[in-house]
Amino acid sequence: MNVFSYRPAPEDLSYTFGGRPAVARIAPGSIVETYTEDCFGGLVTSVGDLPSRVCEFPYLNPVTGPFHVEGAEPGDTLALHFVSIEPARDWAVSATFPHFGALTGTHTTAMLTPPLEELVWRYDIDTAAGVVRYHARRSDFTVELPLDPMHGTVGVAPAASEARMTITPDAHGGNMDTPELRAGVTVYLGVNVEGGLFAIGDGHARQGHGEVCGTAVEAAMNTVVAVELIKGVSTPWPRLEDDGHLMSTGSARPLEDAYRISQHDLVTWTSELTGLDPLDAYQLVSQIGEAPVGNVCDTNYTMVAKLPKSTLGRPDVYESAHDRLRALGRRYLAER
Amino acid sequence: MNVFSYRPAPEDLSYTFGGRPAVARIAPGSIVETYTEDCFGGLVTSVGDLPSRVCEFPYLNPVTGPFHVEGAEPGDTLALHFVSIEPARDWAVSATFPHFGALTGTHTTAMLTPPLEELVWRYDIDTAAGVVRYHARRSDFTVELPLDPMHGTVGVAPAASEARMTITPDAHGGNMDTPELRAGVTVYLGVNVEGGLFAIGDGHARQGHGEVCGTAVEAAMNTVVAVELIKGVSTPWPRLEDDGHLMSTGSARPLEDAYRISQHDLVTWTSELTGLDPLDAYQLVSQIGEAPVGNVCDTNYTMVAKLPKSTLGRPDVYESAHDRLRALGRRYLAER
Amino acid sequence: MNVFSYRPAPEDLSYTFGGRPAVARIAPGSIVETYTEDCFGGLVTSVGDLPSRVCEFPYLNPVTGPFHVEGAEPGDTLALHFVSIEPARDWAVSATFPHFGALTGTHTTAMLTPPLEELVWRYDIDTAAGVVRYHARRSDFTVELPLDPMHGTVGVAPAASEARMTITPDAHGGNMDTPELRAGVTVYLGVNVEGGLFAIGDGHARQGHGEVCGTAVEAAMNTVVAVELIKGVSTPWPRLEDDGHLMSTGSARPLEDAYRISQHDLVTWTSELTGLDPLDAYQLVSQIGEAPVGNVCDTNYTMVAKLPKSTLGRPDVYESAHDRLRALGRRYLAER
Amino acid sequence: MNVFSYRPAPEDLSYTFGGRPAVARIAPGSIVETYTEDCFGGLVTSVGDLPSRVCEFPYLNPVTGPFHVEGAEPGDTLALHFVSIEPARDWAVSATFPHFGALTGTHTTAMLTPPLEELVWRYDIDTAAGVVRYHARRSDFTVELPLDPMHGTVGVAPAASEARMTITPDAHGGNMDTPELRAGVTVYLGVNVEGGLFAIGDGHARQGHGEVCGTAVEAAMNTVVAVELIKGVSTPWPRLEDDGHLMSTGSARPLEDAYRISQHDLVTWTSELTGLDPLDAYQLVSQIGEAPVGNVCDTNYTMVAKLPKSTLGRPDVYESAHDRLRALGRRYLAER
Repeated sequence: MNVFSYRPAPEDLSYTFGGRPAVARIAPGSIVETYTEDCFGGLVTSVGDLPSRVCEFPYLNPVTGPFHVEGAEPGDTLALHFVSIEPARDWAVSATFPHFGALTGTHTTAMLTPPLEELVWRYDIDTAAGVVRYHARRSDFTVELPLDPMHGTVGVAPAASEARMTITPDAHGGNMDTPELRAGVTVYLGVNVEGGLFAIGDGHARQGHGEVCGTAVEAAMNTVVAVELIKGVSTPWPRLEDDGHLMSTGSARPLEDAYRISQHDLVTWTSELTGLDPLDAYQLVSQIGEAPVGNVCDTNYTMVAKLPKSTLGRPDVYESAHDRLRALGRRYLAER
Repeated sequence: MNVFSYRPAPEDLSYTFGGRPAVARIAPGSIVETYTEDCFGGLVTSVGDLPSRVCEFPYLNPVTGPFHVEGAEPGDTLALHFVSIEPARDWAVSATFPHFGALTGTHTTAMLTPPLEELVWRYDIDTAAGVVRYHARRSDFTVELPLDPMHGTVGVAPAASEARMTITPDAHGGNMDTPELRAGVTVYLGVNVEGGLFAIGDGHARQGHGEVCGTAVEAAMNTVVAVELIKGVSTPWPRLEDDGHLMSTGSARPLEDAYRISQHDLVTWTSELTGLDPLDAYQLVSQIGEAPVGNVCDTNYTMVAKLPKSTLGRPDVYESAHDRLRALGRRYLAER
Repeated sequence: MNVFSYRPAPEDLSYTFGGRPAVARIAPGSIVETYTEDCFGGLVTSVGDLPSRVCEFPYLNPVTGPFHVEGAEPGDTLALHFVSIEPARDWAVSATFPHFGALTGTHTTAMLTPPLEELVWRYDIDTAAGVVRYHARRSDFTVELPLDPMHGTVGVAPAASEARMTITPDAHGGNMDTPELRAGVTVYLGVNVEGGLFAIGDGHARQGHGEVCGTAVEAAMNTVVAVELIKGVSTPWPRLEDDGHLMSTGSARPLEDAYRISQHDLVTWTSELTGLDPLDAYQLVSQIGEAPVGNVCDTNYTMVAKLPKSTLGRPDVYESAHDRLRALGRRYLAER
Repeated sequence: MNVFSYRPAPEDLSYTFGGRPAVARIAPGSIVETYTEDCFGGLVTSVGDLPSRVCEFPYLNPVTGPFHVEGAEPGDTLALHFVSIEPARDWAVSATFPHFGALTGTHTTAMLTPPLEELVWRYDIDTAAGVVRYHARRSDFTVELPLDPMHGTVGVAPAASEARMTITPDAHGGNMDTPELRAGVTVYLGVNVEGGLFAIGDGHARQGHGEVCGTAVEAAMNTVVAVELIKGVSTPWPRLEDDGHLMSTGSARPLEDAYRISQHDLVTWTSELTGLDPLDAYQLVSQIGEAPVGNVCDTNYTMVAKLPKSTLGRPDVYESAHDRLRALGRRYLAER
């Protein structure tokens, strides 16, 4: 088993997809063990640390990477299987912002109303018990919520020589902020540049649908990813696969366009996998498809379109990359 | 037990919320047994029955009612508990349309491209087995999907002397098309006119999130509703409650506004039920809230914001109307 | 010349399109002299009259009418030519609102931020000089702006037995709030019910593009309209014609859909009037069309698509109704 | 007078804002004479040259530059005055596209309908007569339209180390496609990186509001720009000034957000220039502001908010940069 361990120093973190040289080269079939900082760069450690004071734009939402996958060329697809995502600290933080989140004016949904108050919450993480604990700021109310670790941000270098802030989700991936991106899931990303140049970050101990206040339970993570390269197969928008489901994503504004992209891709993909006529696939997805919301707060919004594989008779997907990576991941965990 | 049975003749069906006299008066605390036609008025019975030929605008999406609830006045809330929703036939139908659905141009998302093909699918319903069977139109592919009956349309007469097509969801309810509206669920609707004037229709044997092609598995239903009136309590947008969850809805365009309305209402409602500061409630909903998509095809789009009641310590909701109606419904079913 | 004078008492005003009986019957070819109250029902007379205190929902944006046009049937088109629009008082008012306008959260763009302040401005109208005078509320700044009277609201009863608040613009017309609706303009409205049932209101002494704060320079008006009926010609969305231009409107959300509707209608109309292939018409409109913004604050937003008639070789439009009504209006003014 | 002439070779053209070294260094106060290719890179020369065949993604919409302005630092503002914009050829072209334009499905407004037909139009340019001639493709119809040269694309390197395709408009400028960007206009752009790194391209012989089909009358241009640097003054979104008007721009989706940004900036700017309270400025802009549509087809949509300077008592704007550059431009033209 080819295992590569990488822990970035603060100055190694990246704030864009594209426009940065690789931090390492990875052979397809490898396991990558790494660490990701939280979206605040670890600078918000208590309810007194207001992001507007301790963080500096644009040094937000750092990602670890990019990693160059040997042999990856435009038109190929990277398969990144998340073997494990484990909180690196026993606490996490979240915040509201004056101009960020779905229920406040922002720099683009520009308003003349007074801004929202900036406020920080600190959560306790109990990995053994599998819970995070919420504490209200203005009363004694406290409650345990299920721990459900995920990565908000995963992506590759964009096409067309672009470099995009890590906070933006688009066809290259990025800050999709979907709770579906858990351990056990394989993410498929179309390669736009030599080496693909993938990076990951923005761990969440858990997140609601839409990340309505603008941040999740933000946590540093120790994460293990198994990497494959699928040659000669392109992928228009990031796709996810777990043991039971296929998922397409779309990131755009307005939110209905994110929905359209994700559903269109799932319909098209279904048609390709099964040989169904596109209208037959449209009908089938209409009745059995789910649409878990990713984010409704970032510079693009993200929707996921999700289908049980059993509906399609368990078709062969990306040359069975998920099954292979799942097995590799289990072997890794057993041997660790 | 006060049980009222009502089966509409075709000429009794209604195509608007508002603008119509009541078909019957109901005392609070009653059970209503009734029948709803499918969204095509039962006129599409085979794949050869194109809606554009057998249906006539605006005679689409008929609802049964409206029912006058005695004592209901503006500022009150109706609680409608869906005791049972059972397919009235062993088949159902669905269709694509030239100018309706999320992945085609419409009369408002106006396009110069050729329209989508109109095509009909007929499903078999096996109530005993709890499945509906999909048959592809252009291949032999067929698959069983779980039966999951629901009502796409429920609402009251709108405020401000409006009458709205039943296809439109808004603050009065209407065609929300959320799969969350199953048997076992209580719907809360704010009363705008004397008697409230509720009506229901548009049964679906099942539906995907967003109803992407524009129609679900459309079915006539035998439905039983238990009715309560909550005096002096207003409800800004339709809310739902089941044994485990609270849900707020929002219906608007663009889709992010439907999301905003539903999340804003759930945050506000959470704050009221628990005494949490609104920002504390915002933070909590952000981390534990779900956002099941209703429809992304109707004249307004619908989103649902959903929270486990356990998170809030099982607060007292609408004077425990759901628990009471749930018990009444179970008694009715046991005695039937 | 058939001249009909009608001045409504306050209790005669209407707050919906549809759902109301006609106040009078008009023969095609007639002139209607009438009076319209301002959007506040005349209740805001000074900067101390906050709308939230002196007005009562839903008694806002009253319209005068509806008028039954003899012989009008579904599928016909009403041509309403605005002969003159004259301020009925030497003052007008405007306001900001806590939850209305483009730069504040609203009931659908729901926000948790504090609402916008409610504030009233009173303008002086000098009809002889052709100006309105703005006075700042919080400084001595004052400036004269050109008087440019228009009607924000004109429409007919909607299709499908709907009744809509007068504040909503849609395919039936309504509160489009376009400054293009001046004296000298003919409005074409598709007839949905017997008699058409047109009504007008919401006079503005002038208005910026988009009515960004939610209200214009709101004024009561003495208005004269010349009416024709065009039999057997349908009109999908309200259209306008002046001596130099053809205009199509679209009202929807998001704003790009209002743009799409208006441009699609102008392209289609251009193709019909000239025999141009639709793609040739699309290209031509792309290069010479204007797109004056109507409103970006109402329950639907309104865009106008505008083309110089000279570009099309002055085609015959609606059987030359505008030219005929223009001449009738001039004769009326000369004889008055 | 410091005049710098620069004519790019094809390999010198740039396809991003950001991510590219400067082609030249310019001292503030200089005149730049240059050449810009059309959006097709000059490869579409007849109606037989379909862009999908002769052009290659992402080599579309080339810009000339970037130019490093000496002394420019983040927080400063560049003032670019367009002295003259003259078509470099006696023809221009336009096209419809299968997945681009406001009235067709696109990669983000994803549809299952058949795509729009790709078709090219070639226009004659008669600079002396001041007209462009349209020729229908599918009939003999032809008409002269006023020549009104402008640049669709002008911008600087974005903030946050981003590189963006030239087709995207955003806070850094880019492909705003507003017909207001004519000769005689000064554009103000906030500086994000050392030297500012401005570039220009995408000349249009003329354009309608919204560029509805996706392209204007696309033309190579000989363009002269006068450049100033305003130290220590930042500019949040591109602004324009001509002899009579101030203009703010906003680029976003949905279109109402582009409107909100532009109006919010104009209100804020008005308040700063005049000392008016923000609500007083909001009211004034609401009644006298225009909102010319830029584009409703690009990856972000663009709106312009426009105000007559006379309304504000001709305030001092950007240290009178426009007046100074206007005078410099006139001197240059007189001496040429």
